Amino acid sequence: MPSRALLPVIWFWLLAICLAGPAAANDLDDVLERGTLRVGTALFSPWAMRAEDGALIGFEAEVAAKLAQDMGVELETAVMAFDQLIPALEEGAIDMIAAGLSITPRRALVISFSQPYATSGINMLVNRELGETLGNLSDFNDPSARIAVVRDTAASDVARSLFPEAEIFLLANEEEVATAVLTKRVLAAVATTPFPELRRLAQPNRVFVPFEQPLVTTGEGFGLSRGAYDLKAYLDSWIVFRSLDGWLGDRRDYWFGTLAWQSQLPPEERITRESQ
Amino acid sequence: MPSRALLPVIWFWLLAICLAGPAAANDLDDVLERGTLRVGTALFSPWAMRAEDGALIGFEAEVAAKLAQDMGVELETAVMAFDQLIPALEEGAIDMIAAGLSITPRRALVISFSQPYATSGINMLVNRELGETLGNLSDFNDPSARIAVVRDTAASDVARSLFPEAEIFLLANEEEVATAVLTKRVLAAVATTPFPELRRLAQPNRVFVPFEQPLVTTGEGFGLSRGAYDLKAYLDSWIVFRSLDGWLGDRRDYWFGTLAWQSQLPPEERITRESQ
Amino acid sequence: MPSRALLPVIWFWLLAICLAGPAAANDLDDVLERGTLRVGTALFSPWAMRAEDGALIGFEAEVAAKLAQDMGVELETAVMAFDQLIPALEEGAIDMIAAGLSITPRRALVISFSQPYATSGINMLVNRELGETLGNLSDFNDPSARIAVVRDTAASDVARSLFPEAEIFLLANEEEVATAVLTKRVLAAVATTPFPELRRLAQPNRVFVPFEQPLVTTGEGFGLSRGAYDLKAYLDSWIVFRSLDGWLGDRRDYWFGTLAWQSQLPPEERITRESQ
Repeated sequence: MPSRALLPVIWFWLLAICLAGPAAANDLDDVLERGTLRVGTALFSPWAMRAEDGALIGFEAEVAAKLAQDMGVELETAVMAFDQLIPALEEGAIDMIAAGLSITPRRALVISFSQPYATSGINMLVNRELGETLGNLSDFNDPSARIAVVRDTAASDVARSLFPEAEIFLLANEEEVATAVLTKRVLAAVATTPFPELRRLAQPNRVFVPFEQPLVTTGEGFGLSRGAYDLKAYLDSWIVFRSLDGWLGDRRDYWFGTLAWQSQLPPEERITRESQ
Repeated sequence: MPSRALLPVIWFWLLAICLAGPAAANDLDDVLERGTLRVGTALFSPWAMRAEDGALIGFEAEVAAKLAQDMGVELETAVMAFDQLIPALEEGAIDMIAAGLSITPRRALVISFSQPYATSGINMLVNRELGETLGNLSDFNDPSARIAVVRDTAASDVARSLFPEAEIFLLANEEEVATAVLTKRVLAAVATTPFPELRRLAQPNRVFVPFEQPLVTTGEGFGLSRGAYDLKAYLDSWIVFRSLDGWLGDRRDYWFGTLAWQSQLPPEERITRESQ
Repeated sequence: MPSRALLPVIWFWLLAICLAGPAAANDLDDVLERGTLRVGTALFSPWAMRAEDGALIGFEAEVAAKLAQDMGVELETAVMAFDQLIPALEEGAIDMIAAGLSITPRRALVISFSQPYATSGINMLVNRELGETLGNLSDFNDPSARIAVVRDTAASDVARSLFPEAEIFLLANEEEVATAVLTKRVLAAVATTPFPELRRLAQPNRVFVPFEQPLVTTGEGFGLSRGAYDLKAYLDSWIVFRSLDGWLGDRRDYWFGTLAWQSQLPPEERITRESQ
């Protein structure tokens, strides 16, 4: 048993633990006390992209900035690989994820989600030379079919679920996926819109999108630590407000319905129609 | 005051209580650590039914299986009377209810609900001989009107609310309710669709459905323990995902829009048109 | 160190704190144990109004009464100025706010919201003599433009956001705002519908509404204490039930779609067409 001199220390410690309770790290009060909202994101057109001047632009860049402004705190954005976002949240390095993160059952086991603030389709991009004759889903569910996806995305889950017979290549980001399709390293890619459509627009002679309707629709939510109930309530209310006041729809139209923002990108990353 | 030898024991106990916090039993972590999702359900066509081979089939049987698979855990289904579901949840015998459970203010006082994953109408089934001339709601709000419902269902609340003057019979399950109407023990039943429509289809000469539109629409949610905030967040995210990817709508169409599943039932329970 | 005689007292206290946990005051169990739901509201046509006999009437008066009835508790309504509602909630003087309270990012920092149970538009009311020629939003964003709003409403946020150059007058309630426009103390008011439309109906020769569409749409939610997770879950389920069963839509149509309730108001507050 502890010496009697230690007893007050032990009491203090017990009491501190009790009063602190089981509150999650990275909840709303942590953000407000710190005065900084730490948002993790990943580069994915047009969700988050590097502009020619190095600035982060895109739908999520605007969403994160608006959110921090509405909360009255500074914004600190951490750009990382897509498969590092959830680990960063679990380690407490960020308060939330704003990265076009699809709400999926697998992710919901380890993090919490806000309600969806956007929906996306998942579709395919196919190399024209290798796949010109393919037009049915079953054509791609074959051991000879090589299909590229970005690792740990909802699209990678969809590819495995729809094409269990195919060989799935897990790549780091959408640039690698685009290159794999263009160089015929793979037959096709499964990816969230508008990636397939933008690549088709850029190089209609080399790739095509075989299905008019998305294979599946997903909802994108903010990712946050399990147990951060107050931050979840805040984000859900924020989404209601910014949906009804038109702001979310307006920014969505700009980033997903136009290519006006392309002029901010480095010239080599702009998508332009190939000369025919 | 406790003897000094007992002090370390007390401290340990205090500390354990503190660290455990006020977390609900049967929350997400309990399910994941146990490796088993314990789902309570009740027999109600076509939500949950016994197949000829004894297996549990129906919309909720598929929902529970998909949910456990998506969570990566085993499924343990407990079939019980409808009015035993909420007590089982309160006692901690099950983690959640998936039983076409309508979200109602009365139930929400004792358990939590996920967001709705289905909606249903509540309608009436009337004995043709006793009620041929009845066609207005007010015809049934009479002290001479005997109306059967399954105990503790949303339909039983609706019956009491719409027909305060009628004599309400609280029965154990929908088979007893159907028998009561067919045998003229009662004039009519109030029940969730498609029960009234299926019974009319089976025996159009003996029963009818007086109203084309449901008396009221209800939303069905998963029931879970109050305080199981993480499980609620998980289920809400799962519903978003399985709604957007089309799975919930597809299974709903199969179980509520077709009678294809009837061939799995014991012959005596299949609904077939009576010979005229 | 405390005397040994005090140790049992300290243990009891420690234990009590531990077991109580970090639960919010004014959560669902507090309401049920007390047997009284304490609802804060503010006078705003047709949300909450004083009838000729002194009774509180209006959409929120009915909502609060229905909610307390569904919870099986007594209702205690506290009528206060709009800007006193959130402080009253923070002090624990009320359990929830039902006052046509728009869900806004600023408010969501200090209180929690249920999901929205109504939506409203925010529009303008303009003095006809001062503003006859004005018809564009930009006409009102001018240092010479005086614009009245009720303090701490969503409309006051909208006025500041849309008209940063204008001089904004923060008044206590909608009667003061109406008077300010009618007496030409201000050019215009920004307010939640149907205030502008009702005032135009009352005095079409003196005021007008320049925009057919609302400037912005807001969602109204119940306000509750941050951390009152069980009450939030209850209210969200209640809103699902009372939306699907038609009750909320029905009461909304009555209070916002008709003027039938005007006959209950004191004669001087009834809105009637001016004699032309």
